[in-house]
Amino acid sequence: MMKTLSTYLSPQELAKNFSAFHAVDLVKLLDQYATEELLLFCQQLSLEQLAIIIEQSDLALQLRIVQQLSTEKLLKVFTYMSKDDIADMLGELPIALRKSLLKKMKENDRVILTELLGYPIDSAGGLMTTEYIALNENLCVQQALSKIKEIAPQTEIITIIYLLNNQKQLVGTVNLRDLFTHQEEKLLKDFKNPNVLKVYPEEDQEQVSLLVSKYDLLAIPVVNHRDLLLGIITVDDIIDVIIDEQTEDLLGLAGVDKEERLKAPLIDSVKKRLPWLIINLATAFLASFTIGLFEGTIEKVVALASVMSIVAGMGGNAGTQTLSLMVRSIALGEVSFKEDWRLIMKEFSLGFINGAITGLITAIIIYWHYHNVFLGLIILLAMIGNLVIAGVFGFTIPLLLKKMHIDPALASSIFLTTMTDVGGFFIFLGLAQLFLNYLV
Amino acid sequence: MMKTLSTYLSPQELAKNFSAFHAVDLVKLLDQYATEELLLFCQQLSLEQLAIIIEQSDLALQLRIVQQLSTEKLLKVFTYMSKDDIADMLGELPIALRKSLLKKMKENDRVILTELLGYPIDSAGGLMTTEYIALNENLCVQQALSKIKEIAPQTEIITIIYLLNNQKQLVGTVNLRDLFTHQEEKLLKDFKNPNVLKVYPEEDQEQVSLLVSKYDLLAIPVVNHRDLLLGIITVDDIIDVIIDEQTEDLLGLAGVDKEERLKAPLIDSVKKRLPWLIINLATAFLASFTIGLFEGTIEKVVALASVMSIVAGMGGNAGTQTLSLMVRSIALGEVSFKEDWRLIMKEFSLGFINGAITGLITAIIIYWHYHNVFLGLIILLAMIGNLVIAGVFGFTIPLLLKKMHIDPALASSIFLTTMTDVGGFFIFLGLAQLFLNYLV
Repeated sequence: MMKTLSTYLSPQELAKNFSAFHAVDLVKLLDQYATEELLLFCQQLSLEQLAIIIEQSDLALQLRIVQQLSTEKLLKVFTYMSKDDIADMLGELPIALRKSLLKKMKENDRVILTELLGYPIDSAGGLMTTEYIALNENLCVQQALSKIKEIAPQTEIITIIYLLNNQKQLVGTVNLRDLFTHQEEKLLKDFKNPNVLKVYPEEDQEQVSLLVSKYDLLAIPVVNHRDLLLGIITVDDIIDVIIDEQTEDLLGLAGVDKEERLKAPLIDSVKKRLPWLIINLATAFLASFTIGLFEGTIEKVVALASVMSIVAGMGGNAGTQTLSLMVRSIALGEVSFKEDWRLIMKEFSLGFINGAITGLITAIIIYWHYHNVFLGLIILLAMIGNLVIAGVFGFTIPLLLKKMHIDPALASSIFLTTMTDVGGFFIFLGLAQLFLNYLV
Repeated sequence: MMKTLSTYLSPQELAKNFSAFHAVDLVKLLDQYATEELLLFCQQLSLEQLAIIIEQSDLALQLRIVQQLSTEKLLKVFTYMSKDDIADMLGELPIALRKSLLKKMKENDRVILTELLGYPIDSAGGLMTTEYIALNENLCVQQALSKIKEIAPQTEIITIIYLLNNQKQLVGTVNLRDLFTHQEEKLLKDFKNPNVLKVYPEEDQEQVSLLVSKYDLLAIPVVNHRDLLLGIITVDDIIDVIIDEQTEDLLGLAGVDKEERLKAPLIDSVKKRLPWLIINLATAFLASFTIGLFEGTIEKVVALASVMSIVAGMGGNAGTQTLSLMVRSIALGEVSFKEDWRLIMKEFSLGFINGAITGLITAIIIYWHYHNVFLGLIILLAMIGNLVIAGVFGFTIPLLLKKMHIDPALASSIFLTTMTDVGGFFIFLGLAQLFLNYLV
């Protein structure tokens, strides 16, 4: 559909049919426009339509669009945008342009935006918007409804109304539907929900997303340490956070930068993937040198060379199972760092059992192939040993990294591979060297 | 806090302080209660409080609670629960109990629930709820507002109002805030948004979640093929879907069942992780037999045994990078299956470049260690070859599996490891055998 559109509709025609399409899709078309086509398109749009387009654009397109607009027009467009989106955009503009825009804004807007700009982009403060409905809890239903009619067009979430006491502290919420079911003269504070989940602006976005998903919230308020309401974070931004954090974890485990895209230029991909491969190369050399220690033994029993790869490989597989489960549990906030240390015994036993079973299968096949019962016994012991190593380190490495405030998803696997490779080769070849007389 | 609670508060006291806690947290306490404590607790609760507790409980706890209640009381509790939650719970109850409950329900509820029960749990139909506001588009603002006052207490999402034509077909939406900004006598259809994103009940939940997150929706309507509104899916359920699907992908890549939990009993974990390890064992033997083909060569140049593991390992690492990127891109709906086949050339080149660079580093170190320029050359060629294999198969395996309607996250890595292990050993040892005269 999109292809057809760009082929048949001129920028002006597209602008005229603005409302027939979703902004998300329009923006993809604009990306392909030359600058003058973009200008033609923007000239046809109303201020509100421009705001919608800017909100949906990525940074590069935002900058191109902003350059088409006069400062005055841009400020007018801002009145249709939510403060968090304006702040995000301002944060990326050249400093001079940002300052000149802020200077020309209304005092009130400038204060809010400067504050929003002060929080890190991955904190609650960076995510929050200031478009919400907050009312004094001493209002009655009728007063509340008439206030809401005034404020509604400027808010993001209309369903939840935040209640403030006379000191402007957040003391509860009422749901819009409650206003419809209570009598007009009833005070808001008489049917408020006083248990409001709230976060401080410095809270990490991942923690915020855990709260919102756990408690099925449509929005969560952000307060300062005196309980003054600073803003709210809406569920659509939370979904973006969840997807981003998930992408980071899944790609991080494989040593891929979360910013990399399949369609990125070749040279970018080389720059992003090569460092991880080089770190892994160091690990591979460690394993290789471990094998090198036993070259004398391998020379005498060359079968060891083909069997040893099984031990190291299986350790890697079992360790990755534990590691992935840990990384996911940590991300979902399911791991407490006290009692869970006891779980290490479970991973130990699991490694032992799985090692014994897969080791036995391997031992039988190896015996059947090489007719040497000691080679079978050695591989059984080595498999048990390496799968125990895999379980214990797959469990402890992410936990330790988390304690050191390093993202477990980004660094765990390299340490784990080192342990299971070096450990696997060392145990297996070490045992082989010990029992060399029985193998030759 | 929770520990303290369970120690100091009796079930009755806890029930009396019901509103002081979040249901999510209460449910965790109930999990630890013996059956008679649970009964004491439930007896103190109002019907609405029971409904809240049941909605937040997992299946096991739901069943325990349901067993405390008479059928009559349970049916009353249902009136406070949303239809999708009732359906999910009914779906898990023993058939006899389910049938008896359905039989005693009001005709209207029974029809809705039977329909909800008919959809797979991971489809749009299985996710949808029937609590929403749908109005005839020919109503005016005033009529709409008074209808909403009636319906509001029974709906999940009040912000979006679905508009039906006289044939009951979904023709648009209005936002609640629009009702506040338009005059009382204005007709809804005059300011409706006619572009409604909607899904059919058989749509896969992952596709639905992509739509909701892409277009920042609070809810998405489900219609049948005659455009009759069947239900809506709310954003809180979508968040659960996103988290579940992501857990499945991340754990699946590592060969862990998405249902496994760190705290699962040992025997469950053995049962869930062992099958994957045994499949991997088959792969490991394939690699081992590949090495076995070249035992004669290794016997003559034992250094090959320690160097070969580098080639296979690096192939695995590079392949996993491409594979994870592919799996994530497929999950996020970023891969179209036409033009993207051209991207295979990029992965080919990427493998070549990264193989050449890491291969060169390896060759230099190997030369410095073994003083044999041919061994260095061979490893350089083998690294290039194996990283090209890794890139091409890391890209094509998930794509092929997806085309065959197999979840790429669950099966890709086993095929990839086979390719990079067998491929890596074969290329390296094969080259070594070809140039054996230069190595000895």
